[in-house]
Amino acid sequence: MNERLRYIRNNLKSQNIQGMIVSNPVNINYITNIDAEGVLLLTLKENIYITDDRYIEKVQRTLTIDDEIIVTNRRDLSPEDYENFFMFCENVGFEENYVTYAKYKEIMHLYKIHSLVETEGIIEKQRQIKDKDEIRYIRKACEITDDCFTYILKYIKKGMTEKQIADEIEKYFKASGGVCAFDTIVASGENSSMPHAVPSDRKIVSGDVITIDMGCSYNGYCSDMTRTIFIDTISDSLKKMYDLVLNNQLIALDEIKDGTSIKIVSRIVEGNLKVNGYDLMHALGHGIGMNVHESPIISAKNEKCLKENMVIAIEPGIYTRNAGIRIEDTVLVTKNGCETLTNSTKDYCIIS
Amino acid sequence: MNERLRYIRNNLKSQNIQGMIVSNPVNINYITNIDAEGVLLLTLKENIYITDDRYIEKVQRTLTIDDEIIVTNRRDLSPEDYENFFMFCENVGFEENYVTYAKYKEIMHLYKIHSLVETEGIIEKQRQIKDKDEIRYIRKACEITDDCFTYILKYIKKGMTEKQIADEIEKYFKASGGVCAFDTIVASGENSSMPHAVPSDRKIVSGDVITIDMGCSYNGYCSDMTRTIFIDTISDSLKKMYDLVLNNQLIALDEIKDGTSIKIVSRIVEGNLKVNGYDLMHALGHGIGMNVHESPIISAKNEKCLKENMVIAIEPGIYTRNAGIRIEDTVLVTKNGCETLTNSTKDYCIIS
Repeated sequence: MNERLRYIRNNLKSQNIQGMIVSNPVNINYITNIDAEGVLLLTLKENIYITDDRYIEKVQRTLTIDDEIIVTNRRDLSPEDYENFFMFCENVGFEENYVTYAKYKEIMHLYKIHSLVETEGIIEKQRQIKDKDEIRYIRKACEITDDCFTYILKYIKKGMTEKQIADEIEKYFKASGGVCAFDTIVASGENSSMPHAVPSDRKIVSGDVITIDMGCSYNGYCSDMTRTIFIDTISDSLKKMYDLVLNNQLIALDEIKDGTSIKIVSRIVEGNLKVNGYDLMHALGHGIGMNVHESPIISAKNEKCLKENMVIAIEPGIYTRNAGIRIEDTVLVTKNGCETLTNSTKDYCIIS
Repeated sequence: MNERLRYIRNNLKSQNIQGMIVSNPVNINYITNIDAEGVLLLTLKENIYITDDRYIEKVQRTLTIDDEIIVTNRRDLSPEDYENFFMFCENVGFEENYVTYAKYKEIMHLYKIHSLVETEGIIEKQRQIKDKDEIRYIRKACEITDDCFTYILKYIKKGMTEKQIADEIEKYFKASGGVCAFDTIVASGENSSMPHAVPSDRKIVSGDVITIDMGCSYNGYCSDMTRTIFIDTISDSLKKMYDLVLNNQLIALDEIKDGTSIKIVSRIVEGNLKVNGYDLMHALGHGIGMNVHESPIISAKNEKCLKENMVIAIEPGIYTRNAGIRIEDTVLVTKNGCETLTNSTKDYCIIS
């Protein structure tokens, strides 16, 4: 059986769960490499992937004998087949953070399960810890992102629109074998005051602050990086804001290692910003991997600790009515510290 | 109060539901024009949008006094505030097709609601019937799609890859003021046998069938069109397949008008294909609007009837081991028939 599948099965067993219905396509892809529409059943005896005519061929091509997954066409299943899948299971798990309430009821009805239990993100937790291949892909995504930033610094000129810059970033990623991991943010001037601004037709002018939040997906794995740059000049007040954000990012990175309390590192940054009159308007960061935002969230509400081989993004930011500054890197948690995987300069970038 | 909001409120009342929690951002956007992260509460007395620091400014800019929506910052709310929102409601509705099981439990806990009831897609049903503005946006999205198809027919040359063609379509949409409504499918040669193929590095060669499934999103509204084209030549067997698909699409379009049974029109096409030795591997079609796939699904399982001003995509297709043919148009259901909004040629397109 493939290793990831074996790991989940062992984990389920320790939670007294004898079967599981995996519906989230990202989780299915993580376990099986299958990229299709369907559902993965872990029953007492077998692993079964149910799909339909549209995908059967593709799925058969993806799986190997080592996966030990039986592929079934939905149309060949009778209502009794569904009822039999989990017949001897005391508890059957499902993904409570993915499955809608309507789907939950449908599952109960279809499989006639007596005890359908929450798995508390069992697979999402497993995905937090990256293996060598995953780290390799994320590293490559980060490399492309760094290269793109170097390129875009030379590309940006006054008179260009935010959209133009965002499009150029997308083009760069594609030409490098990646795609955008999320909608690139290019927020200039007063637009930078909104952490989630959408690139507009606003033209870059002298004196602008520009927040660029960009990430590349390479072979299914994401990077996430933000840099804030300046056009022609940087005012003293913006310099102060920039220094405050950068220092806090560096303080956070300095704290990060296997065992770091997520709550404490978040509180440190929150406190530092508060003393200076700012609120941390969003989480300090988030896990990153197959999804650009995944478990663990790095915020004061998270009671868990960081672990070796987690990959996370750390992105403090402060926003006033007129401008915003955010600095973000993707980092790999190591035993004794962390390795920054995005390495674009964090000196003042003033372009003209 | 804005009209869409009033309509939902009246609908809720007729279902004996006194309040509703709207979580789906597309539904919120439909009702309010808000494009942010937050939740819309329809309480007995008020309409309240709860968001956070990141979006407050943007949301305030979007809403007008006519909306009658109060904007609240999450951080200003106490646990008691949440409990008070629905205090005098007998039944409170939620979106069972959007809210996850975990979120459902969180809502129950946060708002202390005794009777949280499914609304059976109340807003999705409202969204099925398009108003004048919505039809105008979809019409424009379809126009861009037609223009793009004309352009791409001239662009495609042997030796190009599927990815290159898909990228060019994306560029065209962007240059026309739109974006891709979904990941464009360009499936050539044997790849066309998979209805959901992802554009690959496969190069176009003489004798290829190419299925191009493309859609544009303009001002938030989508188009969806598929054409199957041929390189240099078309074999007699492919011609036969093409005719069968096209005839069935035309038969379906001919059936469509206000009052048409969705089940019956789907059955007619299924039956016609079956007689010729093919299965309809996917639904005959789907509603289209703010989402590229939305209610109603056009399949034999749907017992409902079409209504005037629905916009739907009709996309019969057949697939063998070596090739696939699919033809799809976006159409507007009218009182006495339907208007095809995508109008690219359905004659044999043989390019060289």
